[in-house]
This record gives sequence, C-alpha cells and structure tokens, in this order.
Amino acid sequence: MPGPVTLGEIANRLGARVVGGADVLIEQAGSLEHAGPRHIAFYSGPRYRAQLAATRAGAVILAPQAESATTLPRLVADNPHACFARAAQLLNPAAAPTPGVHASAQVHPSASVAPSAGIEAFAVVGAGAVVGVRAWIGAGSYVGEEAAIGEDCRLYPHAVVYRGCRLGARVIVHAGAVIGAEGFGMANEGGRWIKIPHIGRVLVGDDVEIGANTTIDRGTFEDTVIEEGVKLDNQIQIGHNCRIGAHTAMAGCVGVAGSAVIGRHCTFGGAAMILGHLSICDGVQVSAGTLISRSIQKPGTYTGIFPFDDNAAWVRNAAQLRHLSELAARVSALEKIRGKRKKRNG
Amino acid sequence: MPGPVTLGEIANRLGARVVGGADVLIEQAGSLEHAGPRHIAFYSGPRYRAQLAATRAGAVILAPQAESATTLPRLVADNPHACFARAAQLLNPAAAPTPGVHASAQVHPSASVAPSAGIEAFAVVGAGAVVGVRAWIGAGSYVGEEAAIGEDCRLYPHAVVYRGCRLGARVIVHAGAVIGAEGFGMANEGGRWIKIPHIGRVLVGDDVEIGANTTIDRGTFEDTVIEEGVKLDNQIQIGHNCRIGAHTAMAGCVGVAGSAVIGRHCTFGGAAMILGHLSICDGVQVSAGTLISRSIQKPGTYTGIFPFDDNAAWVRNAAQLRHLSELAARVSALEKIRGKRKKRNG
Amino acid sequence: MPGPVTLGEIANRLGARVVGGADVLIEQAGSLEHAGPRHIAFYSGPRYRAQLAATRAGAVILAPQAESATTLPRLVADNPHACFARAAQLLNPAAAPTPGVHASAQVHPSASVAPSAGIEAFAVVGAGAVVGVRAWIGAGSYVGEEAAIGEDCRLYPHAVVYRGCRLGARVIVHAGAVIGAEGFGMANEGGRWIKIPHIGRVLVGDDVEIGANTTIDRGTFEDTVIEEGVKLDNQIQIGHNCRIGAHTAMAGCVGVAGSAVIGRHCTFGGAAMILGHLSICDGVQVSAGTLISRSIQKPGTYTGIFPFDDNAAWVRNAAQLRHLSELAARVSALEKIRGKRKKRNG
Repeated sequence: MPGPVTLGEIANRLGARVVGGADVLIEQAGSLEHAGPRHIAFYSGPRYRAQLAATRAGAVILAPQAESATTLPRLVADNPHACFARAAQLLNPAAAPTPGVHASAQVHPSASVAPSAGIEAFAVVGAGAVVGVRAWIGAGSYVGEEAAIGEDCRLYPHAVVYRGCRLGARVIVHAGAVIGAEGFGMANEGGRWIKIPHIGRVLVGDDVEIGANTTIDRGTFEDTVIEEGVKLDNQIQIGHNCRIGAHTAMAGCVGVAGSAVIGRHCTFGGAAMILGHLSICDGVQVSAGTLISRSIQKPGTYTGIFPFDDNAAWVRNAAQLRHLSELAARVSALEKIRGKRKKRNG
Repeated sequence: MPGPVTLGEIANRLGARVVGGADVLIEQAGSLEHAGPRHIAFYSGPRYRAQLAATRAGAVILAPQAESATTLPRLVADNPHACFARAAQLLNPAAAPTPGVHASAQVHPSASVAPSAGIEAFAVVGAGAVVGVRAWIGAGSYVGEEAAIGEDCRLYPHAVVYRGCRLGARVIVHAGAVIGAEGFGMANEGGRWIKIPHIGRVLVGDDVEIGANTTIDRGTFEDTVIEEGVKLDNQIQIGHNCRIGAHTAMAGCVGVAGSAVIGRHCTFGGAAMILGHLSICDGVQVSAGTLISRSIQKPGTYTGIFPFDDNAAWVRNAAQLRHLSELAARVSALEKIRGKRKKRNG
Repeated sequence: MPGPVTLGEIANRLGARVVGGADVLIEQAGSLEHAGPRHIAFYSGPRYRAQLAATRAGAVILAPQAESATTLPRLVADNPHACFARAAQLLNPAAAPTPGVHASAQVHPSASVAPSAGIEAFAVVGAGAVVGVRAWIGAGSYVGEEAAIGEDCRLYPHAVVYRGCRLGARVIVHAGAVIGAEGFGMANEGGRWIKIPHIGRVLVGDDVEIGANTTIDRGTFEDTVIEEGVKLDNQIQIGHNCRIGAHTAMAGCVGVAGSAVIGRHCTFGGAAMILGHLSICDGVQVSAGTLISRSIQKPGTYTGIFPFDDNAAWVRNAAQLRHLSELAARVSALEKIRGKRKKRNG
C-alpha cells in the first residue's frame, strides 16, 4: 500500500467525477460492510442499499443513476465496478520482483534471462528458455527448455511450464498450475493403449491469468492456444488442441475436453464441462455445472443443471425420470382417445 | 508401529470394555477381510456379518448391541468406529519431524522458526514468517512472507502457503495444496477483465486437514476462513471470501464459489458444487454430484443428481426432458377436459 | 525428431502395406488439416473426406476399405489409428534422461539409484527408495522413503510419490501429480472427526500414465491398486483402497470415491464420478459428466447427463422436475378414469 491519497487524486487518475469531500484521505479499498473511514467501497446497486446506508467507508464509487443514493464522499463513474477495480489497483500496486537470479536457482547457460527479471530460490530455467523483462519466476517454478516467458509475467511458486510453451506479456500463473503436459491422446490396439507423442505447444496470449493447480495440455501436432485476456480460475483442465478465444473467463473446476474451439467473450460458470471436438461461438454464457455436449452457434445463456431438492423429494421425482419416455407415451395415448371421443361426441 | 500391545492395554487406553482374551497381542489395525491374528479390526454392523464370521483378525471392535456377534476377543465401545480410529492411531503414532533446518532450505533471516520444527530440503520460509513448535515443513514446501504455521502442523512436500496466510495448530496440508492464491475477482470494462487486487488472507483453524492439490483462495478485502476441525479431501476448490464452519467435511472434487458461507457440521459428497454468495446453515448434508444453487436454511439432506441408466434408456428419457413443460401443460389440458366432461356427464 | 525416413521404411517397421510413393520422405506426423509434404497424417473415415481431399500431407495412413479414398502415397493398416500412433512414436522417439544425479538433488545415502537413471535439480529421493534403470526423475520431484520407481519411468517436474508407494516399469507421471497422500478416512465422535491413519500404499502397474495434478490416495490398511496399462488424464482423484483394472482409461476431472473396484478395459468420460464401495465390471463405458451411484454388473455404455438447453427453456422444464412424481400420478388418475369410462362406454 503506497500510503493515503485524496479522493480527488483518485478521481483525477481514473477520470471519475468526485462529489463531496475531494480531500478525504483514502488508504485502502474495502467492502461496504467492512470498510472503515480510510477505505473506499463500491456500491453495485439497490440490492445493497442497506449496506450503503450502514457503511463506515470514507468514500463510495457508484453509477450516475445512484449518485444521490448516499451523501458520503463519492466517485461517480459510468462503469463503477471497473472504476473500483482500478482504484483498488492504484492503492495496491503490483509488487515487482527483486531483479536477479537467486543463488540456489538453476538457470541453464543457454537460457536468456532479462537482467530486470527475478528468479527465486529453487527455480529452474531450462536450455534455450527466454525470460522477459521484469518477469518474476517464483520459488521452485519450472520453465522448460525453449520455453518463453513474456515481459512482466508472474509465475507464483511451483508453477510448471513444459518445454517449448510460450507465455505472452503480463501473464499471471498461480502456484501449482501446469502448462504443457502431454494431452490424453492414444490409439487402442487389442485393448491396450498406444501413446501418441505430443509435439504441439501451449501458446498463451498477453494478459492471461491462470489459476492455482489449473492444467493446460499441449497440442498433439499443432498448438493449444489461449488467446489474450483469457481468465482461468483454479482447478481447470484444458485439453490438447483447444483454442480459447480472447477475454473468455472460466470459473473454478471447469473442464474443456480436447480440440474444443471456444469463442471470445464467453463466460463459464464453475464446474461447467465442455466435450471435445466441438465449437462454441463468441458471447456464450454457460451456467455452472452444465455439460455442453454439442456445438453452440448462437450467443446466449445455456444451462443444464438438475435442480436440487430435499433428498426425499428428489428420490420421488428422480425415480420417475427413468419412465419419462413412457409417461410421454401414456399422455399421447390419452390425447388420442380424447381426440377420438371428441370426434365421436363433438 | 511401536510394537505389539495387549488388547487389555488398548482397552485401558481407550476406555473400552474388553471381552475375552485381554492378553492377545495386537500389532496393527486392519480390515475384517484382510486382518491377521495380530490385527484388530472393526465390525460396523450386520451388513458385514459374513466378513466377521470369516475374519482371521486377533480382535474386533464393536458396539454393545453387537457384543455377542462373535466369540473373538473384542473391545466393546459405544462409538466403535471412533474407538477403532483411536486404536489405529495408538498403533500408528504420527511421525515427528527431525528438528532443524535442512542445509538446502531457504529460511529468511527475519522468519521465526521454532527449534523443534523441521524444515526439509528445498523448503522456502519467507520474510517475517512464523513456524511453530514441532511443525514439519515438507520438502519443497513454500511458506510465504508473513505467513504463520501453527504448532504441530504438517505440510507435506510441495504444499504452498501464500504470503500472510495463517494456519492454526495441528493442521495437515497434503502435497500440492495451494493456500492463498488470488481469487477470481474482476470487473469487466468493454469486454476486457480488470483484476481486483486481493488483500485478504486465508485463516485456517486448528485441526484442519487439507487434501492433496486442494486450493483455497485468499479473500478480496477480508479473509477467507476455514474454521477448526474442517476436513477437506483432495482436488477441492474454495473460492475467495468463503467461510467454512467448524467440523464440516468435504469429499474430493467439491467446489465452493466465492463468498459462500457454510455452516458447522455439514458434509458434502464428492464433486458437490456450491454457488457463490449463498449461505448454508449448520448440519446440512449435500449429496455427491449435487449443485447447490440457493441458500439452505434448514438442516437435512439435499440432492440433485441425474440418475444414470444404460445409454439407450437415457437417450429416450433425456429427450423428453426438453418437453417436460409441454407435457405438464398437455396433462393439465386433459384434466380440464375431464373436468368439463365430468361436469357434463356426472 | 531423428531426421526424415522413407514411407517404405515406416511401412517395414510397422508391418503396414505401402501404396504409391514408397520413396517419399517423411519427417513428422501431423493432422490432415495442417500437415505439409514431409508429414504423414491419419484418415479415420468418411467424416474427414473433405479434409483428405484438401490435405497437403506427403502420405496418409488409412484402413483397407479406405485404400482408394486418396491417390496420395499411403500406408494401409488394419488398425490405422494404432499404426499412426506407432509412426508418430517412430518419428518422435521418447527422450532419455541424462544419467546421473544433479549436484543440487538430495538423494539419501540409503536409496538405491540405478547409474543409468537421471535425477534432475532439486529432486528428493528418500531413505531406502529405489530408482530403476533409465528412470527419469524430473526437477523438484519427490520420491518418498521406501518408495520404488520402476525402470524407464518418467516423473515430470514436481511429481510427488509418498513413502512406500511403488511404480512399475515405464510409468509416466506428469507434473504436480500426487501419489500416496492419505485418504479421506475418519470416524465421527460427538461432531468431531478423528483421523484414521493410512498404512496402505499405492501400487501402480507397468505402462500406466498419470496426468498432471492427478491425485491417487494410499489405502487405509491395504493398498490402492492401479493395474497395468491404466491411463489417467489430468485432475483426476482416485480415493483410498480403490482398484482400477488393467487398461482402463479415464478422461480429465474424473473422481473415484474410496474403495471402488473398477474393471479392466473400461473408459470414463471427463468429469464422470464414481461413488465409493461399489464395483464396476470389465468393459463398461461411462459417459462424461455421469455420476455412477450403484454397482454395474453388465458391460455397456451408461449415461446420466442433464441435457443442456437455452436458459429460458431449461428454467421452464427444470421447474417441472420438482413435480414429476405428481405429474405421473395425475396421468395415472386420468388413465383410471379413462379405464372406467371405457368399461362404461365400451
């Protein structure tokens, strides 16, 4: 935290309009509920009106139509959530690495590491690898042979980038993520599996974030591609040969099977599953827990969740599911009789 | 294994009642099916009567009402499963670390490490971190700056604790678990995602166990909290700002989205998914594979699973699901006609 | 890549029949879509006829019945997919480790490491562990006390094998996989969980592949067993005491709860979940996203997926699911009336 700044200064830096109290000192961002007098909080709308009324925050960020919802010092912005994110970034600038290679790290002589990059303890940088300016390779991380890490990337401890894979600029990789393991490609011969070597790579675009323990497999012959601005939460699996379009976001535990092609600006709720060899167009929202089993050509929201219930009710209803086709046939039979009777009686 | 002990001694130590053969020597715990004459096994009830009849175990632990189910030497206990767990612990006392810091480990000079703690090879302990008495930091583990590891904690190899996170006493963290990565918090601006910095921590209570490759994200502004006695299996994802109540247990592959508040003494079957910003009261059981999409205020068991079937039957029935609403309308129409006819004919 | 070989030489090595252009030089395997004149590609059938017509590949592998589908130089094989996998292996022979122990690795004096094995930087090999000939222990990997790694195994960076676990020959373990963590076994006493020590091991057969960040728990008293030829993709969880039959394959994100016994030659689609203490016979196919809640005695394909739909349609239909049992009762009531009326009118 860089020390307190005035609300007016934040407004200037972010191009927001300040209403009341430009001199109030702000030290940190916080939630309406827990913020104190030196915090700036975010009001997203009427659902949080009670919290806004009760907040102890020193200032609030809100939309023009909510401008009069409080008398607190406030920043008015057309996109108040984005404004709040930027204010929080301003108050919490990203740390920079200590430049240089830790004495215990293993950097291959043929690797190229920018002097401004920081390589922490027990990190490994393989032969021919490239580490860009100000890149931060966390403790125990592994950068394979011929891999490339772009400028201002941050690999948290224990991130693994297999040989040949390439990260663009400003990519964040959290602990335990594995980029470039071999995909699940095999042929079956007489009941035994024969491995297909994977010579493709993983290419990760600029400004991508990859969550803790997420895995992205390398392509079979061509590359697996994660386009710029994609955000992947924790525990996600991306299969070989996939392409994830720019600025698409996936919540935790999502799985994408091999060779799926996913559009730009899509969102996937937690634990959504995408089968392989299908394509999803731009602008698709997939609900949490939904399995996508065929391609989607039309933007929109798609869902397939079994609604939960108390267990007894579920047992009662789920049992009927196995007879749903019969039930439909029985209703058709009744309608047919009714039709005949109607004709006869009508 | 500390060498054989008599059944009578086990009974004394655990406050159980011994029936027959207090002198029988016991070396190890085992299952009814595979135990030998030096093993003690557990009989959970009539479902395992055949295994009890056939067991070669030297002794058995069972409930008072099952006391006469066998003539083997036995321990009678009101909670025989708990008694068995304690007997197994007695026969397999937890290993203690070799005190001291391995020559290859990197401990920051400003970190405070208890002399009785053991820090294994290639472990990293950051600036200002605290490692409690008898804590065991496994090979290659990472304890970030200002993090705190309580007494008698065990971090298995490659566990990662990000900066500032705190573990209580006797916490077990299995290999590859990541505690404190940044949560999935972003604002969208013109289709691009803007990161919200995460300044909260993860606070883990006493006696928590965290499975292999499980991930727990740090809070956005406040802390993510895992209360005492919580047990998390492998491959679990806990989102930012969550609170998991004391003594709640989650089986493998569970996902909890951000800001969910979960009560005490709950259980979650494998791969259950909890959406964000909802609350679940104490004493809730969620079945495996169930997605919880709204808050639960009443203790009980909740389920939402599509029952599996052979594929042909599933195809037949699932196809009707897309017309279920129509089907219900068709039945209503038939009932209406029947009502009219009844009136006419009745 | 070992340099170009002629199509005829590939045919000889693999026992395939060459048609046209035995002299064409092949350097690499590729897909029909992206292959160039020095690549060999695979034609799996009529669905890819257009790609076959357009391919720039130098040669193609196909089945006898497809022999005349192209005039390109080609290899004809009864199992063309397997033939293609072997051709790709021929063109991309697996790398061998640099024999010897890296100066930074920690190998316990009582461990036995074959001179032809390669132990990379920051790897740990515990007391009494055995590492077989030509085994490759990647950077930062952990081989616990008394563990055994068979000949020609490959542990990618950051793989963790807990104490006492045993891998057969030619096992591949990808980065971040954890073999042998303690299973989720506990007794409940007054609302608190009491840990049951896990003294079983994990035994992994020959030719098994284990994906990145996959976890396999050790058995409680007996061993968890992964039989020969099993292929596990990434992010999979195998609970304690499971047995997975030979040559079974599981796609990413599958979960298998404790004590499940799974047959040979089964396949599991991504994110399939298998509950504990059940058994699945040989030759079962489980569809992606399907939860198996009871034992299966008959080979075949089993499915249980909620079909996804656009969100509005899903809301409409899912709402009826909670009344499905009532709906069935209403249809029965209508049928009863119709039966009476039929009798009366008939």
